[in-house]
Amino acid sequence: MSGARSRPGAVLLEVSESDWDPGPWVRALKKVLPGRRVLTDGEGLEANDAVYALVWKPSAERLKRLHSLRAIFSLGAGVDHILDVGSLPDVPIVRIVADDLTARMTEYVVWQVLHHHRQAFAYAAQHQAHDWRGREQPAAAEVTVGVMGFGTLGQHAGQRLSSLGFRVVGWRRSAAPVAGFTVYGSDNLGAFLAETDILVSLLPLTPQTRGMVDRDLLARLRPDGPLGGPVFINAGRGGTQVEADIIDALRQGSLLGASLDVFAKEPLPPGDPLWTTPRLVITPHVAAASDPDALSSQIAEQIAAFEAGRPLIHLVDPQRGY
Amino acid sequence: MSGARSRPGAVLLEVSESDWDPGPWVRALKKVLPGRRVLTDGEGLEANDAVYALVWKPSAERLKRLHSLRAIFSLGAGVDHILDVGSLPDVPIVRIVADDLTARMTEYVVWQVLHHHRQAFAYAAQHQAHDWRGREQPAAAEVTVGVMGFGTLGQHAGQRLSSLGFRVVGWRRSAAPVAGFTVYGSDNLGAFLAETDILVSLLPLTPQTRGMVDRDLLARLRPDGPLGGPVFINAGRGGTQVEADIIDALRQGSLLGASLDVFAKEPLPPGDPLWTTPRLVITPHVAAASDPDALSSQIAEQIAAFEAGRPLIHLVDPQRGY
Repeated sequence: MSGARSRPGAVLLEVSESDWDPGPWVRALKKVLPGRRVLTDGEGLEANDAVYALVWKPSAERLKRLHSLRAIFSLGAGVDHILDVGSLPDVPIVRIVADDLTARMTEYVVWQVLHHHRQAFAYAAQHQAHDWRGREQPAAAEVTVGVMGFGTLGQHAGQRLSSLGFRVVGWRRSAAPVAGFTVYGSDNLGAFLAETDILVSLLPLTPQTRGMVDRDLLARLRPDGPLGGPVFINAGRGGTQVEADIIDALRQGSLLGASLDVFAKEPLPPGDPLWTTPRLVITPHVAAASDPDALSSQIAEQIAAFEAGRPLIHLVDPQRGY
Repeated sequence: MSGARSRPGAVLLEVSESDWDPGPWVRALKKVLPGRRVLTDGEGLEANDAVYALVWKPSAERLKRLHSLRAIFSLGAGVDHILDVGSLPDVPIVRIVADDLTARMTEYVVWQVLHHHRQAFAYAAQHQAHDWRGREQPAAAEVTVGVMGFGTLGQHAGQRLSSLGFRVVGWRRSAAPVAGFTVYGSDNLGAFLAETDILVSLLPLTPQTRGMVDRDLLARLRPDGPLGGPVFINAGRGGTQVEADIIDALRQGSLLGASLDVFAKEPLPPGDPLWTTPRLVITPHVAAASDPDALSSQIAEQIAAFEAGRPLIHLVDPQRGY
C-alpha cells in the first residue's frame, strides 16, 4: 500500500480502438466507484496518476507512463490484446470473469449448436423453395459436442448443452477433470476430435493455439456422425483458425457447416471470401459483448477486495498466455 | 380383463396419411412387444381383432370395426387429430408423453427463442451485405418468454430457458401453480400477454383455443420490450393461429419476428403468402417429430402396466379436448 491518500486512486480507461465510445463505461464505472476519478486516455498528464488501468488493445507506451499503476484489468474475456502489445509494466493482469459475459457466451454457443443440429440451413433453403418436407432429425443424445477451451466459459456452455440432451466432451491443455464430463488434454487431441460432431472453440489465442484449427485438425473430426458431417463453431479468437482451410472444407463439403464470431482480421474486410462461403454463419464478434454495467460491478468488487488487502482473482499468467 | 388368451392382443397401426411409412413403426413395435402381432390398417379382417389402436389421423369408421378394442394411443403429442374424426369407440385415449418428444420440443423452442433474441434475421441481412456491425444485445434476463400451454412440454422448455437466464412465465387454462414460475390462467390472459416479449405457444387445439392467436391477442403483447418488439413462436397446433393476422403483424412491423412449425393447413400450400412473409421462420411440422423407437418403448410400457392391472396414464379428457 502506498499509505493514506486524500482520495482513492484513479481508474484509467485505455483503449486504442478508434470507434470505441468510452461514455457508457465512464458512466457505469462512476456508478460503482463513487468518489473515484474515472479518466480516459485523452486526459493526458492527469491520467499518468491512474492506479488501475482498464484496457482493451492498450498502447504499451501509454501503460509505461502510469507511474502509480497497481493492476491492469482486461475489458474482454481474452487477454491476447494485452499480452501482444509488447513489454508491459510489472503489475498483475486480471481477466474478466463475469456472470453476464459467461451467460452471453453460453447463449451464443447453444444458439449455434441448435442452428446446425436442427438443420437450419437446409430448412431455410426449403423455405426459399416453398418446399414442405420433413428431414430426418437425430436426437441430441446421438450428437457429441466437443468444447475446446474447457474453462469457466466452456463448462458453463457444456452444462446447458448437456441439459438439452447433447453428449458433451471437453478438451483443455491441462486435462484437469471436470465433474460430469469426459475431459481430454494435450496428449489426447486425436481421441477428442474423433468423437466430436460439433466442435466448439473457446480457446484463448496463445503461441500454442495460433492457427491450430486447420485442414488437418478439421479432417480428424468424426466424419460420419448423425448430422451427416462435422460442424465448427468459433467464439474464442480468430487467430486460432486458418480461414482458408475452413473455406475449403465448407466448399468441399467435408465440413457440414460452421459459425464464426471471430476472425483473423477484424472487422472482416468486405471483400473477404468468408462472406460468400456456403453454410457459414458470420457474426461480428458479438458472442459475448462486454456489458459496461455488468463488468464494471465485477471490477469494482475486485478493487474493493484488493484495497482491503485480499488477493486479486482471475489473474493472468503471462507465460501461459491466459 | 377378457380372460386368458392364447396369444397377446394385437396392435393396429391406423394412420390415414397417404405418405406415411409404417415400416419403422412396425419394426420398432415388434422389438418392444415381442410375440405380439403388429398389424397395419391394410390388413383387413385380421386387423378387426386388434386390442390396441396406435393412431394418427385415424378413420372413425375403421376404429368402429375394432370389436376387441381396449385403448387408443396417439402417435403424436396432440390428440385433436383423433377427437376431430367424429364419434369414437368408448375406450381410453392415451396421449404420448415421451422424454424423447419432450426433449425435441424443448430443442425447437430454445433454438427459436435464441434465434430471435440474438437477432439472427438482422445479422443474416448484414451477412448478405458484407456489413460488419455489432448490434446492441439485451441480456436474457431483460427478456420475458411467455409460454402458453404450460404443461409437461411447456414446463420442460421453460426450465431450460430459465437456466439460460430468460425470465419465463406460463399461461394455462387451470392456472395451477408450478414451482419456480409465475403461472397465469384464463382470467389473466391480459396480464400474461402484457409482460411477454417472446410468446411461445404449445397449446392443444380445442374449441377454446381455435383461432386464439389473432390480431387482438398479438396487439396485447409487450410492444416496447428490449428486443424492439414482440415475437411469436408456435410449435403447438396451427389451428390456434389466424395466419392472415400474423402476416399483417409481420408486414406492418408490430411483430418483430415469428417462427411457425404448425399451420392451419398442412402441408403449407406452395402458393401460401406465409412463404414470402418477412422475418418468419417456417419449418414443416418437425419441432418434435415422433421417433418410432422412443415412442414405441413408452407405449409398450403402458400396455404392460395396463395388462398387469395398473391404470393407463396420460389419459385424454375428450370433453376438455386434451
